[in-house]
Amino acid sequence: MSTTEILGYCAAFLTTASFLPQALLTLKTRDTSSLSLTMYSMFTTGVLLWLIYGIKKADNALIFANSITLFLSACILGFKVYNVMFKNG
Amino acid sequence: MSTTEILGYCAAFLTTASFLPQALLTLKTRDTSSLSLTMYSMFTTGVLLWLIYGIKKADNALIFANSITLFLSACILGFKVYNVMFKNG
Repeated sequence: MSTTEILGYCAAFLTTASFLPQALLTLKTRDTSSLSLTMYSMFTTGVLLWLIYGIKKADNALIFANSITLFLSACILGFKVYNVMFKNG
Repeated sequence: MSTTEILGYCAAFLTTASFLPQALLTLKTRDTSSLSLTMYSMFTTGVLLWLIYGIKKADNALIFANSITLFLSACILGFKVYNVMFKNG
């Protein structure tokens, strides 16, 4: 593994790990009232595009980081949409 | 510009734009009480590493997205450290 690849995996680990506690708390409590639907939809779409970009460039650090983040943020977005539709937020 | 590059810039635009409103609000109010110092330090370091990774790979979409995010998150981290040291949070 090259130095650049190690750097990419460290970056991936840090940004993903910093997103995890908040994401897991939201998934546990299912409280999405403090999230903006617009902003969260943009974020989730953005992460999806980063993942496709990583796949197209065969960049494993990008693929690794964005698959985990996409999975979590898509679940949270699902709860948000559900809450907006059935629970007023 | 190739399709992959356009995809990268769209991803960069979306994830950066979704981070902007919260970041600008935090910078405006300077209220960092709801931020975890550990998580935010990890995030800021992670974004810095993504930026260096982007520079090493000469990946303009990564450089673009992570320079803006690093600037904002470093300012927020600065306020957080200041608040923790002088204002109990």
